[in-house]
Parts: sequence; structure tokens; C-alpha cells
Amino acid sequence: MSKPLRVGLAGLGTVGASVVRLLVENRESLARRGGRAIELVRVASRSFKPDVGIGGASFDTDLNSLDTADVDVVVELIGGEGDARKLVETAIAGGRHVVTANKALLAGCGNELFSAAREADVALGYEASVAGGIPIVNALQKGLAANRLEALAGIVNGTSNYILTAMEEDGQDFGNALAEAQRLGYAEADPTFDVEGIDAAQKLAILAALAFDTGIDAAGVHVEGISNVDVEDIRYARELGFSIKHLGIARRQEDGIEARVHPALVPESELLAKVSGVTNAVMVHGDAVGSTLHTGPGAGGMPTASAVVADLVELARGTLPVPAAAHAQLPSLGLAGVVCPHYLKIPAIDQPGVFAEVADILSRHRISIEAVIQRPQAIRSGEEPWVPIIILTNEVAENEVEVAVAELGKLAGVSGSIARIRVVDLSAMMLGP
Amino acid sequence: MSKPLRVGLAGLGTVGASVVRLLVENRESLARRGGRAIELVRVASRSFKPDVGIGGASFDTDLNSLDTADVDVVVELIGGEGDARKLVETAIAGGRHVVTANKALLAGCGNELFSAAREADVALGYEASVAGGIPIVNALQKGLAANRLEALAGIVNGTSNYILTAMEEDGQDFGNALAEAQRLGYAEADPTFDVEGIDAAQKLAILAALAFDTGIDAAGVHVEGISNVDVEDIRYARELGFSIKHLGIARRQEDGIEARVHPALVPESELLAKVSGVTNAVMVHGDAVGSTLHTGPGAGGMPTASAVVADLVELARGTLPVPAAAHAQLPSLGLAGVVCPHYLKIPAIDQPGVFAEVADILSRHRISIEAVIQRPQAIRSGEEPWVPIIILTNEVAENEVEVAVAELGKLAGVSGSIARIRVVDLSAMMLGP
Repeated sequence: MSKPLRVGLAGLGTVGASVVRLLVENRESLARRGGRAIELVRVASRSFKPDVGIGGASFDTDLNSLDTADVDVVVELIGGEGDARKLVETAIAGGRHVVTANKALLAGCGNELFSAAREADVALGYEASVAGGIPIVNALQKGLAANRLEALAGIVNGTSNYILTAMEEDGQDFGNALAEAQRLGYAEADPTFDVEGIDAAQKLAILAALAFDTGIDAAGVHVEGISNVDVEDIRYARELGFSIKHLGIARRQEDGIEARVHPALVPESELLAKVSGVTNAVMVHGDAVGSTLHTGPGAGGMPTASAVVADLVELARGTLPVPAAAHAQLPSLGLAGVVCPHYLKIPAIDQPGVFAEVADILSRHRISIEAVIQRPQAIRSGEEPWVPIIILTNEVAENEVEVAVAELGKLAGVSGSIARIRVVDLSAMMLGP
Repeated sequence: MSKPLRVGLAGLGTVGASVVRLLVENRESLARRGGRAIELVRVASRSFKPDVGIGGASFDTDLNSLDTADVDVVVELIGGEGDARKLVETAIAGGRHVVTANKALLAGCGNELFSAAREADVALGYEASVAGGIPIVNALQKGLAANRLEALAGIVNGTSNYILTAMEEDGQDFGNALAEAQRLGYAEADPTFDVEGIDAAQKLAILAALAFDTGIDAAGVHVEGISNVDVEDIRYARELGFSIKHLGIARRQEDGIEARVHPALVPESELLAKVSGVTNAVMVHGDAVGSTLHTGPGAGGMPTASAVVADLVELARGTLPVPAAAHAQLPSLGLAGVVCPHYLKIPAIDQPGVFAEVADILSRHRISIEAVIQRPQAIRSGEEPWVPIIILTNEVAENEVEVAVAELGKLAGVSGSIARIRVVDLSAMMLGP
């Protein structure tokens, strides 16, 4: 057996502690699979050494302590961008391999880091940066390597999916579902990053770059979160045969890559519509294989550690890739060119003629109507009587529907803002543009 | 770029023709991902050359034509065991790598072939042998390599799942659903291999060996097919909150590997219960990651070719593994030690006291009852009035329930055979024995 792979670990939070545990508990099988021992030699963490056994590894509060000849690979688990970037750049410059779980880092400067790693001829593993324990990077890089990948769609933010599931299954409103997620540790005190879609957009950018062999462009992703989804929308969607999910979608188009993150009505017949709670799921469409779906825990200490250590095993074996240059720099199209059905909730004042006006505007924009729900509402005294008109449209281009919705909003018979949620027909979408 | 990987392909059926197509159509991206060109140099097929373009490759009806110095890897797609075994053994003896889609071959003599490949230091790729296009071998070997795998459960025979789906969704009986599957090309003229579970058992044996790092033991798998599942069972199961699926299950036990293939009641809340049609799905439980689910097309020319060519890309890259010696030879336990709830359908003559006798027998075997369905039946004239009693039991050991069912069958008030289908509680099962 060759000499051990010597690991320097930065960060001893939940994931870091889980990596340490896994390296100890599965030491024997990891050595067998990696062809040599994987040995934790140094741990660095800026806080004082927490109550985590680190075996014979040395500990230091200085991250620079990993910049040393007895470390073959630096595992970056400190998160954030500034210090993490410096740590990774230093490791690469020192000729050390890197394994990271840091999506924000890769979304921010992944292209630069990949390029530096390529020049230094070191591997850069990032399985843990997307979809936690699901080996999706591995599937895209290896298992599906025979395919020209056409599209991917996924639930990549467990917090948002947990909240939407609670809203759908328990009828909770967004605020309560969020509070529950926070209580259970599934959402941060400041949940912006998750519920506004930023986290999902970063992950989508990483997956898209990998799937379409292009650069990472997180800024080019169209981003909407779930904070405007009303529990009433979820009920109406269900009545129409859909579940509302927060999706990240990336698709090859003729002139670039469509990339978008937003709430979406997904047909209940799709497996993706059934993925509940903090579980993540990524659906991939390739020209040969067709569609595959990969689901599992999207976060958490041990699932993320599973991905980090999988990269270490590959590295020990000598099969973790040095990043190749992106084949092409495909422009990010965001939402441009997206054509899909829409769910509209129009708060109409209950007076004659409003529906006719709504229908007229849609018709003038050549938006045809697939389904309508309008019911008598109980009227509370002192309030103006109004009814939500729910419309499911046929396929319509983004700019068309936007203009139509703006016109609808100006109608005297419409009071309040119009909800608009895109419908995603995965089977049609996966067949390519 | 290094010299090309030279491929010799045996077999030009649906999968073979798809491999040829993929190697041509995605030639450029394959070369990029593999780090060198993947070049089809020779094709052998015992039938005359079919109407498939094979580019510049030479064609021969003699399989021995691939046993030559200008072939680096033999792709075995002829199926069956005799000739395929000889072809693979010859390739290995000649120092050539092998990629195969042949589950029957691996189930029959995979241990010997792995051992020969190890001694000759050649790689043996078999991603295509299980679950078609789903990169599950890759996930088990690499993506989940950090884990001690505890259990796996899957729908690995698309024909059976197609038939069960047609029975559940359209209310067809087994015979009609099978005939439809045959008409659509999802089932063979002689469907035994698929509907009696033999195909699933072979695949399960291959997956179990990989997951638990032991030898392949297809003979040790307990096998039941779906031909005895009645459409009525599916309706009752649904009423009780379950879907009936044909599952392959392998699980680490203290004294060996539990391995079984049989119809099973799966709770409707499980994603696996929603996998419909010819789609395959494999759920894996590891100590670190928890449960992941991998779904996709389980058969078909292009999906299977996707898996074959993925192995070729890995081989080109130098990362397709030479088979390692199994870590341990764990005994196959089949059904031994399985304890689970059961669905029982007891055809009872409609006379007083029968239910009491049934309940008494179950009680004497300490089998407690979780749910019962018994309804008045429409009685056709001339027939003895009888009613099916449906019982969902709590957990019971295999031998206990078997004895109890035999006793039930002897009751004067029971006429005809008793249906017994195991209930699989995936969440509990995945938590380990």
C-alpha cells in the first residue's frame, strides 16, 4: 500500500466534526477503497479547539498552519468567501489538493480557483458544495459522462422545500412554517440566503457549469425566492393538479444557458413534486440516458461529510480530477426565451364585468386560458367584496405575460397585487428546447 | 492528447447499435472527458452485418476477431452466458479491458471473471448490467464511497414495474397488463425471466456484492415474481395506504446479507411507491449519508449505451477500477431473519365463526392485527357465498407467518389459497437491523 493521503482540515463546525468522525469510524473501509490510508494530520479552526476528538492530528487556531509540507490535501470547511478564498489559494499555490463544501466560494470565484488548480496541476473536489450527500457532481462528471446533457432541474435548497412542504401538508402560512424551520434548525436566524433563492442560485450555477461544460456564472441566474408564495396559492395549485416547489432550472438553449430559480407549479404526477421536507433532488436530462433523478439529504453534518470524504477517497485513489478548462463560455440567458404556462391569482372586486375585462386583456396578448377557478367568497362586513380569480394560462413568453399582468393590475376592478407563478412541465422541458 | 482508446464491440443489437451511435454523435465531448479519443476499431456480430453505420471500424462475424493487438477494450453486448463468458475470458487473458452489460454473465460467474481481471490487471466495467442508464454502480463505487452501506432496496425490473403500474392505474389484471407490455416491447414473448423475478435477483446480487464488498451470490437470493399478484390485492393495498411494488432488497445483518426479491406493500408516502412504468429506482442507505434514491430508465438501447460508454470514458481517463478482491465472503441469508408486517387475503366462506377462527389462529401465533377489511360481497347464484378477509398484521417473523398461514388454509371455513405479501417499511428498514 502506498503512503497515506495526509489531510489538513480547516473548520470544526458540524460538517468538520462529522468529517473527523467519518475518517475515524470508517478508517479501514476508506483505506481499502482509496488504496491507501486517509490520515487526518492537522486541524485548524479559528475558535478554540472544540470538544471533538481529533485523534493524533495536531490542532492550531491559525489557518496558515495547514500550509505545510506534511499536508497533501486541504479540506476547506470554514465557509464564507474572504478567508476561505485565501486558504484555498494558498493551498493551491503550495501544490496541495483542495476539497471544499463551500458553494458561495465557488459561485463567487470558482472559475479563478479552477484555473489556478489547473495551472498547479492539483485536484479540486466540490461534491459537498451542492445537494449535500447526493453524489450529483460525481454523476454529472462520471456516471453520465457519455451524454450531451440538455437540462437539469432540482430542489437544491432544503430550507425552502421544508417550508413549502409544511405549507402544503399542514396548511401553515409562510411565517409560521419559517418559524418552525428555524426552531428545528433548518433555517438560519436571518433566512434571506435560503428563502430568497440565493443559496439555490449558487448551487444551480455550479451544477450548470458542470453539466454544460462552461464557466460558473451565478450572477447570470434569474433568482426569485419563496417569500411571496401564499398558502392559498398552494391550495389552488393542488386543486389544479400541481405542487408548488422551489426549483432551480438550467437548460441548454441555442444561444446560451437558460438559468433560473423560482417557485414553480410542478405536475403532481412528477416524482419531483413528491420530494418533501429538507430532501434535495436533482433531475438531469441527457441525450442518451433520458431523465434520471437523484434524491437524498441536501444538508446536515454527516451527509455533507459523506460527500467530502468521497472526494478524499477519489483523491487517495488518484481519480479526483484536476479541473479542465471549460469547453466554452456560454452566455447566461437567465429567463430570456422562457416560454411556459403561468398560474395567475388576480384579486378582483366582485362587480359585474371584471372577468370580461381580464379575459379581454389576456386575449389581446394572445394568452389562452387552460383553467379558471372563481368561487363566491364569504364577505366580511365593512370590506369591499372581492374574489380571487385563479387562471392557469397556456404557454406564454415571459415578456408577454409581464406586460399583460401590468395591464391587469391597472384595471379598476382589480385591487391589490397579482400573483404570478410559472408552471414547469418537466417532461416537455426535458425533451429539449 | 494520448493515443486513442481502441474499442472492439461484440454484438450489434439494440444496445450495440446505440453504443455505436453514441460514440459517433458525442465523439468530441467523449474525447474531451476521457482525455483522449475513444475509437471504435472493430465490430463483431454473429449475424450478418446489420444496417448500422460503424464508420471506419472493421466488421467480422467471428467473435475471435476482437482477440487482437489493436483492441484495448472489448465491449461485450452479445448477452447470454456461454459465448459471452468465452469472449470475456479471452479478452482478459489477452490483457484487454472489458466492459459488459451482461447481468446474467456476472450473476453466473462474475466472481471468477473479477478474479481473472484482477490477476491480469485489467479493468472490468459493468455499469450497464444493472438499472440501465442510472449510474448506480458509479454511485456505490465512488459517490457513496465514504459510507458503510447498510441496506439497499430497488425496483430493478422495468417489465414487472410496468405491469404492476398498469394493474394499479388502469385496473387491468395481470394477464392483460402482461399482454400490453409484450405488445409495447417491454416484455419478452417468454416473460418468465422478468415476471418471475430472476432478472431482478441477478441485478440485486450484483448490487449487493458491490454495496457490501462481498462476492456475488445470485443463488442465495430469495426470489418471488409478480405472477401471483391479483389486481384485487393492489386495490386493497391502496385502500390501506400502500402501493404494491416488486422490490429487490439487500441488507447487512449481523451474520450475513439478507437478500430477497418479492412483491411488497410500500407505504404510499415513499418516493419509491411513486416510481411508475418501466422506470427503475434504487434506494441506498449509508451510515453517513442516510438514504439516497436514484431513478431513471432501467432498460432500452440508448440508456444502456449511456452506461456502457460512461465506463469507456472512465477507462480512457484511466479511472475504471481493476476489480479488487472482495473484502469478505459474507453468507447470503435470503429471507432468514426477516421480520415484517404482512398483508393476508383469506378467502373465507361466509358463515358465522370463520373470522373468530382466523383471529384465534393469528393470536396463538402472537400475530397481532393492524387492520382488517371485510365487506359484504355480491353473491352470484349457484356459488357458495364467500368473502375475502384482508388482514394487515404487525411485524412477524417469516417462519411464524408461514406456519400460521398453513393452519389458516386448513380451516373448513377457508376455501382456496391465501395470498400473503410482505410489507416493506423502508424508513425503518433503512435505519438498519
